Amino acid sequence: MAEKEKLTIVVFSGDLDRALAAFMLATTGASMGMEVSMFFTFWGLNIIKKNEGGISSKGLMRKMFNFINRGGSRRLKLSQFNMLGLGTWMMKRLMKDINMPSIDEFITMAHEMGVKLIACTASCGIMGLPEDAFRSEVESLAGAAYFLGEARKSKVALFI
Amino acid sequence: MAEKEKLTIVVFSGDLDRALAAFMLATTGASMGMEVSMFFTFWGLNIIKKNEGGISSKGLMRKMFNFINRGGSRRLKLSQFNMLGLGTWMMKRLMKDINMPSIDEFITMAHEMGVKLIACTASCGIMGLPEDAFRSEVESLAGAAYFLGEARKSKVALFI
Amino acid sequence: MAEKEKLTIVVFSGDLDRALAAFMLATTGASMGMEVSMFFTFWGLNIIKKNEGGISSKGLMRKMFNFINRGGSRRLKLSQFNMLGLGTWMMKRLMKDINMPSIDEFITMAHEMGVKLIACTASCGIMGLPEDAFRSEVESLAGAAYFLGEARKSKVALFI
Repeated sequence: MAEKEKLTIVVFSGDLDRALAAFMLATTGASMGMEVSMFFTFWGLNIIKKNEGGISSKGLMRKMFNFINRGGSRRLKLSQFNMLGLGTWMMKRLMKDINMPSIDEFITMAHEMGVKLIACTASCGIMGLPEDAFRSEVESLAGAAYFLGEARKSKVALFI
Repeated sequence: MAEKEKLTIVVFSGDLDRALAAFMLATTGASMGMEVSMFFTFWGLNIIKKNEGGISSKGLMRKMFNFINRGGSRRLKLSQFNMLGLGTWMMKRLMKDINMPSIDEFITMAHEMGVKLIACTASCGIMGLPEDAFRSEVESLAGAAYFLGEARKSKVALFI
Repeated sequence: MAEKEKLTIVVFSGDLDRALAAFMLATTGASMGMEVSMFFTFWGLNIIKKNEGGISSKGLMRKMFNFINRGGSRRLKLSQFNMLGLGTWMMKRLMKDINMPSIDEFITMAHEMGVKLIACTASCGIMGLPEDAFRSEVESLAGAAYFLGEARKSKVALFI
């Protein structure tokens, strides 16, 4: 049997709009029979953090950082026209209006379609994020070497 | 005859500086004999909107959104140092000073060189953009599946 | 002997966080035996500017622009949560805390590992940056055609 073509996406950004683009591409790729990996790093980790509860990181500075930068799929904002939340609220309404899934629904859908969701080890280290900060759909933590290993076997690799 | 090598660019951003980078790469690729497609999505759609007239979208919320997010190649701003328009004005002067084409000129040039300009269907759906919101150089609307189909046949695929 | 696999990265952004991602990938790639090129353009040029002294560009407008947009690896800011420098300061502390190299150290390290650092000719032209504005680790200036030539021979090409 022929090997599946791979699509590998680095999700660096934690903006609602870029997250949306990443999941649109990932789920479309999966539906086309591609083997898709999403590698969440830096602000992108916000997308796959649990929405509920606090984040238990060690040290005052990391506690502060994770309090300010709380994250979670329902707290993402537009990169432009956030307008104190009004723009983000409008965008979510516009998405719902044409039956576009929310980021929450996209995460579940991607996971069910076999898209691998991976959190970047180094970013977790800097930010002091324990593995249980992430949703159950997240498969594992892995480093830049893992990403490059996948990317060089991929037909398409994107940095979002 | 050998098939041409492909270059496929997702233009997600609507910033003047990133638009400039995208068109520099697209026109350079075309001049090197590559087959180039630019796939405009989300804020990137602003780059290829007509500069004149209003945008006739349906529903109050979409009308409001397209009023605030008017777009058009001459309304793009720098992602940094916009400084209420001063930085953007300076950048346009600096570009002109070394005979760098404006975005308007780049769009015409790219089109004449055979670069395919494509608007993302899903983004148009969310934002309620009718096909006539776009300039005549825009070839067609297409979805993420079309983009991935092109990207996986491409030597180089970038997300800007 | 088999040719080395190539990794080519456009560094468009001059944000501390994106610079960090770019150097993590570049040095990891080099350590995996890949042949890595980093092509700095637009705001990304700030990363490889010398930290000391002024920049001698011609014409009032370029002098002003380079005064405002001074750059240098030690002046980079976070794209989010800069909070008048507090967030950036915190991030640098968090990085140090887990023995992550600073951008300064990453540049030296990348150079020593054979990563090619290249400055984009067109951006230097727009901004009026002379070649001596850049650190000694920067190998040369080159244009978009050079980048595309490298990218199409690359296993992985990213735009950051």
